[in-house]
Amino acid sequence: MNLLLLSNSTSDAGYLTHALPWIREWASHHDATGDALFVPFAGVTRTWDAYETLVAEALALLGLRVRSVHRLSDPVAAVQAARHVIVGGGNTFALLGHLRTTGLLEAIGARVRSGKASYLGWSAGANVACPTICTTNDMPIADPGGFGALGLVPVQINAHYTDAHPPGHRGETREQRLREFTTLRPDMPVLGLPEGTGLRVHGSRRAVLGAAGARRFHGPATPQWLAEGPLDHL
Amino acid sequence: MNLLLLSNSTSDAGYLTHALPWIREWASHHDATGDALFVPFAGVTRTWDAYETLVAEALALLGLRVRSVHRLSDPVAAVQAARHVIVGGGNTFALLGHLRTTGLLEAIGARVRSGKASYLGWSAGANVACPTICTTNDMPIADPGGFGALGLVPVQINAHYTDAHPPGHRGETREQRLREFTTLRPDMPVLGLPEGTGLRVHGSRRAVLGAAGARRFHGPATPQWLAEGPLDHL
Repeated sequence: MNLLLLSNSTSDAGYLTHALPWIREWASHHDATGDALFVPFAGVTRTWDAYETLVAEALALLGLRVRSVHRLSDPVAAVQAARHVIVGGGNTFALLGHLRTTGLLEAIGARVRSGKASYLGWSAGANVACPTICTTNDMPIADPGGFGALGLVPVQINAHYTDAHPPGHRGETREQRLREFTTLRPDMPVLGLPEGTGLRVHGSRRAVLGAAGARRFHGPATPQWLAEGPLDHL
Repeated sequence: MNLLLLSNSTSDAGYLTHALPWIREWASHHDATGDALFVPFAGVTRTWDAYETLVAEALALLGLRVRSVHRLSDPVAAVQAARHVIVGGGNTFALLGHLRTTGLLEAIGARVRSGKASYLGWSAGANVACPTICTTNDMPIADPGGFGALGLVPVQINAHYTDAHPPGHRGETREQRLREFTTLRPDMPVLGLPEGTGLRVHGSRRAVLGAAGARRFHGPATPQWLAEGPLDHL
């Protein structure tokens, strides 16, 4: 499998700009100038047309031609022929619900697992690459019909990972939220990906991308910071 | 119905301390010195025994005798005889899942709707009083078997409401998250309850409690701050 899972899309430099070198390397393993199928389902407050345009313009710099599945008459067939599948961020629950009802959850999982298509996702698009969406930060605005997701990696991702906590706020910190998850699921590791980082998986090689590294939670163990670079295990 | 729905339990003054005058008034409508049934199911990283002790000690100051449902052989029967039902905060998904599988979701809804029991909930316990849990801030660490909840009020509550946003954070603001909800559900109002506030419902009377007021979202309309005091409508 060829996967690039990013914490976030936006930065001061521009939309996806910080990740373009990583996306170029990721795309080079199939056909760097080819077609890429885009899944806009996580978009709720922006239209899917506008989302397609935003991503198409950002990735045209790499020679990728982005088409959104929402304009195709047979999205499942398009996935079954795709070389690059790109799943954008937004609301994870909306995304997973649409993936499930359209049949794309199964189709994308099979195609990417077969090695015939590469997978790029950011934020919600990285969450759905995990076994479940149980470590999303998003609000459950719609019932996705179950929390099981693509399961492309044997680890849960927490995007936009941060230790920051507004002063006076009595809600849970991110670490407290993730400890609730690892209490219920001590068998399942979680990677907290700070802004500007990502997880790269290519065959048996795995790496943390981005200078901020990643925060790993696993059962009752003390969480650890993983530095940018190759990972022996997830 | 006699409901007291609080944003939060903790404050610098102590556990539930800021809310004791409100809880005293709420409890006085049945039997101020009576038994109160406690639902600890939102607790994940603390034990249900410890949670019961914490709440029992805080409410003993008001003469309420708190017993947790998790130690009873027939929790549904206990609800059917209860005068005060208290649902604590923690993880909303864990709470709703346990309420559903134990049959307490239906039992508590029926008992409170009949007017025979009063309902107090904070944080997750306020979320489950709403039509759905679609406006919780919590992480979906466990599948609750559907998002439908008690529906005691015709409005969604967002607990721990805040405008604060850590600098440099690229995740959604709270307002953006709630706008995703009101985009999908333009018919359903949302009350954002800042720390130290609550919603009081007694028969046809409704009021915002707490000096910070409440933030009301409804469809595409500009959100409004509601001041502490009586509410004409939710």
